[in-house]
Amino acid sequence: MIIGAMEAGGTKFICGVGNEEGEILDRISFKTETPDKTLQQAVDYFKDKGVQAIGIGSFGPINMDLSSPLYGHVTTTPKPGWGGFDFVGVMKQHFPVPIGFDTDVNAAALGEVQWGAAQGLDNCVYYTIGTGVGVGVYAEGRLIHGLVHPEGGHVLTRRHPEDRFEGLCPYHGDCLEGLAAGPAIEKRWGVKGTMLPTEHQAWEMEAYYLGQAIAGVILLLSPKRVILGGGVMHQKQLFPLIRREVRQALNGYVATPAILESLDTYIVPPSLGNNAGLCGALALGIKAIKGWA
Amino acid sequence: MIIGAMEAGGTKFICGVGNEEGEILDRISFKTETPDKTLQQAVDYFKDKGVQAIGIGSFGPINMDLSSPLYGHVTTTPKPGWGGFDFVGVMKQHFPVPIGFDTDVNAAALGEVQWGAAQGLDNCVYYTIGTGVGVGVYAEGRLIHGLVHPEGGHVLTRRHPEDRFEGLCPYHGDCLEGLAAGPAIEKRWGVKGTMLPTEHQAWEMEAYYLGQAIAGVILLLSPKRVILGGGVMHQKQLFPLIRREVRQALNGYVATPAILESLDTYIVPPSLGNNAGLCGALALGIKAIKGWA
Repeated sequence: MIIGAMEAGGTKFICGVGNEEGEILDRISFKTETPDKTLQQAVDYFKDKGVQAIGIGSFGPINMDLSSPLYGHVTTTPKPGWGGFDFVGVMKQHFPVPIGFDTDVNAAALGEVQWGAAQGLDNCVYYTIGTGVGVGVYAEGRLIHGLVHPEGGHVLTRRHPEDRFEGLCPYHGDCLEGLAAGPAIEKRWGVKGTMLPTEHQAWEMEAYYLGQAIAGVILLLSPKRVILGGGVMHQKQLFPLIRREVRQALNGYVATPAILESLDTYIVPPSLGNNAGLCGALALGIKAIKGWA
Repeated sequence: MIIGAMEAGGTKFICGVGNEEGEILDRISFKTETPDKTLQQAVDYFKDKGVQAIGIGSFGPINMDLSSPLYGHVTTTPKPGWGGFDFVGVMKQHFPVPIGFDTDVNAAALGEVQWGAAQGLDNCVYYTIGTGVGVGVYAEGRLIHGLVHPEGGHVLTRRHPEDRFEGLCPYHGDCLEGLAAGPAIEKRWGVKGTMLPTEHQAWEMEAYYLGQAIAGVILLLSPKRVILGGGVMHQKQLFPLIRREVRQALNGYVATPAILESLDTYIVPPSLGNNAGLCGALALGIKAIKGWA
């Protein structure tokens, strides 16, 4: 079975094909432009691949309410041309096959559950910390959508006592994304995060915010694993700092060995590496055929 | 079909019997003492009722991991005699019927989904704000357990700028429960909340904390309804104040009519009133027979 996979990011699209074992057999990537231009490239890529389903992990917000006439649309993004775009509808016109559609982060969570760092678990949370902060939630064997879909990057945390940066989120100023996404790091310190030394205070501050948010998720959802991906998390020195913050924030309250003793295997990077997003989209495609929840 | 229901609280037990329509046909309540004494009263109550299943909504933390030898036990509570108590095991000895077991707040969420304020919805969050703060989560048609179970009462919120109270939580000091549960209100203001006038600053401060926490839950889980129960929420003036805080905290980011236009029907009291907990336990009992997720 050949499945199409599409990681639809706000700045970059990645298209690929893969199989049921989670193997990516081919991939291309191109810049995200207007929907017309961008989708045309995707259609051109997939048209002679014989895909039996397509999975799309999309930037958002998106409409995933199957009972809505706007199902499959991108909704209120400020990205030119994409607000109200009928993403699934256009793909369906070209490819009359089952199409799976979810947020990029829910897709990544599902990919990690199928083949990666949360393999076999029925509960996990996937963070991406990059140009924004996104959270995918997989709980009791299902991706969580709810009314819209999780937007956990915008939660409030307490301010670090030494942080004078006002935050970058156009909606909330100093929410998690406003304080801890890549652009916030760059604005606060005046250089890109990749230019900062690993022992720079930036990372301790970053871990302070992410650790608080993750502790909140652990309290609220009790995930069986927390996976931290995205460009900012290429700074591997963050992992031990974040684990320390989480341990301090919980302070022994969630009395289970995974958290009290094994935080190193509980808060982890994605194991699908650069293919995490595309494997997630692949998993959505397979799910669309097989009816995984 | 007659189902037994047990709302096992830290200070009070309520036992009752009901039917599949959610009707409570009989109920008693008694003080929570040692497990031996308390369970004996429950057993005496149920023994001639002909129950075909029993649902237990319990104070926690509890073990709900069906693969664990400690399934059905109360775990680390400081309550004398209850730590490590095999709650389900003891009930099974006396009543060899299906037994449903979950947290009191998950039970209440399920009851409201079956017969109450979230009827027919596949996603809702239930808060109880009383002597503690508890959160039950029902998402995509299932109660969320995860690694342990939600403990969302212990999340951190930002401090109200005028609040000098240090908080009462033995684990976290000024987490939500430490700042907003009934005992915190009493300690902060020197009198029980029920003695404070409805226009007292206490309520604005209370709404500040609860509103922040609820906004966080909306971002993370996108519930289709948020139900606020428990003794503190008998202060009905809190509802409009909390809705205002939530609206401010989200600031238009979650752009869906339920939140932008209809917060009055989105953040609501439980509609099962004083039977919310017991109906929840009843729902757990029915679920144990019928295999509801």
